[in-house]
Amino acid sequence: MQTITNQSLIARDLDVIWHPCTQMKDHETLPLIPIQSAKGVYLHDFEGNSYIDAISSWWVNILGHSHPRINQRIKDQIDKLDHVLLAGFSHESAIELAEKLVEISPEGLEKVFFADNGSSGIEVALKMSFHYHKNRGKNKPLFVSLTNSYHGETMGALAVGDVELYKETYNEILIQSIQTSVPKDQSEAAALEAIVEAEKLFAEQHEHISAIIIEPLVQCAGLMHMYHPIFVTKLRELCDRYDIHLIADEVATGFGRTGTLFAIEQSGVSPDFMVLSKGLTGGYMALSTVLTTNEVYQAFYCDYLELKAFLHSHSYTGNPIACSAANATIDILRDEHIIEKNQEKIAYIKKQTERFKSLEKVKSVRQTGMICAIELSGYTFEDRVGIRVYQYALKHGVLLRPLGHVIYFMPPYTITLEEIDMMIEVAYLGIVSLE
Amino acid sequence: MQTITNQSLIARDLDVIWHPCTQMKDHETLPLIPIQSAKGVYLHDFEGNSYIDAISSWWVNILGHSHPRINQRIKDQIDKLDHVLLAGFSHESAIELAEKLVEISPEGLEKVFFADNGSSGIEVALKMSFHYHKNRGKNKPLFVSLTNSYHGETMGALAVGDVELYKETYNEILIQSIQTSVPKDQSEAAALEAIVEAEKLFAEQHEHISAIIIEPLVQCAGLMHMYHPIFVTKLRELCDRYDIHLIADEVATGFGRTGTLFAIEQSGVSPDFMVLSKGLTGGYMALSTVLTTNEVYQAFYCDYLELKAFLHSHSYTGNPIACSAANATIDILRDEHIIEKNQEKIAYIKKQTERFKSLEKVKSVRQTGMICAIELSGYTFEDRVGIRVYQYALKHGVLLRPLGHVIYFMPPYTITLEEIDMMIEVAYLGIVSLE
Repeated sequence: MQTITNQSLIARDLDVIWHPCTQMKDHETLPLIPIQSAKGVYLHDFEGNSYIDAISSWWVNILGHSHPRINQRIKDQIDKLDHVLLAGFSHESAIELAEKLVEISPEGLEKVFFADNGSSGIEVALKMSFHYHKNRGKNKPLFVSLTNSYHGETMGALAVGDVELYKETYNEILIQSIQTSVPKDQSEAAALEAIVEAEKLFAEQHEHISAIIIEPLVQCAGLMHMYHPIFVTKLRELCDRYDIHLIADEVATGFGRTGTLFAIEQSGVSPDFMVLSKGLTGGYMALSTVLTTNEVYQAFYCDYLELKAFLHSHSYTGNPIACSAANATIDILRDEHIIEKNQEKIAYIKKQTERFKSLEKVKSVRQTGMICAIELSGYTFEDRVGIRVYQYALKHGVLLRPLGHVIYFMPPYTITLEEIDMMIEVAYLGIVSLE
Repeated sequence: MQTITNQSLIARDLDVIWHPCTQMKDHETLPLIPIQSAKGVYLHDFEGNSYIDAISSWWVNILGHSHPRINQRIKDQIDKLDHVLLAGFSHESAIELAEKLVEISPEGLEKVFFADNGSSGIEVALKMSFHYHKNRGKNKPLFVSLTNSYHGETMGALAVGDVELYKETYNEILIQSIQTSVPKDQSEAAALEAIVEAEKLFAEQHEHISAIIIEPLVQCAGLMHMYHPIFVTKLRELCDRYDIHLIADEVATGFGRTGTLFAIEQSGVSPDFMVLSKGLTGGYMALSTVLTTNEVYQAFYCDYLELKAFLHSHSYTGNPIACSAANATIDILRDEHIIEKNQEKIAYIKKQTERFKSLEKVKSVRQTGMICAIELSGYTFEDRVGIRVYQYALKHGVLLRPLGHVIYFMPPYTITLEEIDMMIEVAYLGIVSLE
């Protein structure tokens, strides 16, 4: 019989693993938590402790852990076909997934290109946009993004981001990009003000700009900053006027997170590229897709010897196992009316987080669909209040992972009202406990 | 009962999927092949045709398809834990995998950082190397690679590549890197000549160079160009002398492909970073790892507020399901003595490909372990001889996917001598059939 304990695994772990997005020295005082199993919204460690996964394990497990339909679909896939390269070959799961994505995505997105993670998907969209213009005789080497934006960690994705914490160290090994201001808050006025700035930039430099990339409505890693949908509606008009692509990074916002299936739906427009990952596989494994228009596709479609093809590839492009998880996820969202049912939870979270507003240290409470963020003020970076709330919450059975001084909830959609109560109560007490 | 045919799937596929590394117009004349199932070295389509997967589906399925031990391990993992974020948390499969990798990799590689695909892993290594020097007070924004090298498709990985076909289009949106000549052939003299050039470059610019990145012994996407192990031995000395990191891209060469577990073993040295992917999961799904030294790790280890941490992350970093496939793969390689048993197959392939040398159109036949390449000459780019051999081979039950005018074999290690005969015979006749 095994006698695995948290402690024994922690020691083994720290000897060999370098964890992502972590100052490893923190683990001298902040214990790592080895997870033995997970079911629904709960993570279980090796000592009988359970944690509500209130951030869906970095925003991926949208249907909770160990969903029986996803589990079964993956097992069936493994028994049939593990993998085959997608160049020259194909398979049912990739075809089914691409058809589903075209069907459920905004109008005009008709072709699906596969990659492995959000960052790689962003890189595909950037390269494809630049290459599209090139194939049409235009050289447009600039990309625009919003201030405070985050689009991933590979060097192309990082170059179009604007979160200093992740980017500043590497500035010298990144290409230059241009930022235009994100709307400063969720008001329509702020959105329209930001559009004026974007229009000025486009008017001046459109001949050199391939694309603007945005996270529609919520800049997730950008401290859950939120803005009004009309910004994207107006931005679409600008993009059309100036022959600039609109890339929607829906890696975090997609698959119901903002209350609609895709965030950009709330703006009533379609992007030229939409990048999906995270929730795409229901939180089971890495996969990303880049959807685009037939117009973009056609700009690469010609005789081979013209050398206009998009030669990007990753080994596991369209991996059958990952596609099977994604197919199950989309089926569940539809069959179980998850997004419709979320509306009650969204309203409930709104109601239950009202009380945070009366706390002196709370600067704002903001929400877009199944994302709710509580921003604290009056603390310095050195106070590390986020990590203190994190520790408090863990002790009380909830996994929160604040971004600096912003505590947020992005739970699996399968969370119950009672579990929402617990998640919010623990966050509330965690904030109150700060001094 | 389903009546799925190749034709029905092809039509559905072409309507929605944009395939990787493909001029989609080619599929007007070159039929896509939908694969229904795969077992061992065989891919099976929907019309009863089977194909020997002589390129291991882009060099990943090293143990053949649908290996019972890998299948079972993944299923067990799914029943236990689908996924949990690896920041602040951990799980047995990631720990086990990191321990195994440290154990089997060259001496001095002690810490494992996870990413999702080869490109992302390369980006991690580049960023970590640059950041290491920065944390030690040195600003070294340049990377060196070898001429004719390929390291992936995301913009950082592409920037350190040198295969025009993939890179030239994007030069304006890539950072600059420096190339030094790869040894021109497999001789020791060529290796030493190339070292002289590298030494000159290092002597002149070492203050600005963070790292040199190489594929040890074989530049796989670089038309299977091969070189002598002493090049890497000598390069290691240069790197030590000039405080430049050696990054070994073993994405394609790792896990036994070159006859040893890792290619760099044949040079008797250790790199500062080793990037693994492809065969890591036995060809089941995307995963990559970057191994590095405790010295590198320690340069980031300090109080959080010093802001020296490596904050790179991908959502699915250390995904349990992918780790479980990797653990099974490493167990199989060890338990079934796969690499030892490959030696007979390596010798057999060498013997059986001798006859290619007498063909007038064959310029060279070269081999490193389980990679054997036949380079043709006398054809132009426009002749597209590769695709003609590809089509010939498919008609005769073998999946080859030549790189331009280089036909190569990279079969699963489970291939039998009889299947090797068939693979080679079909390639031979395919070449002979060219006019």
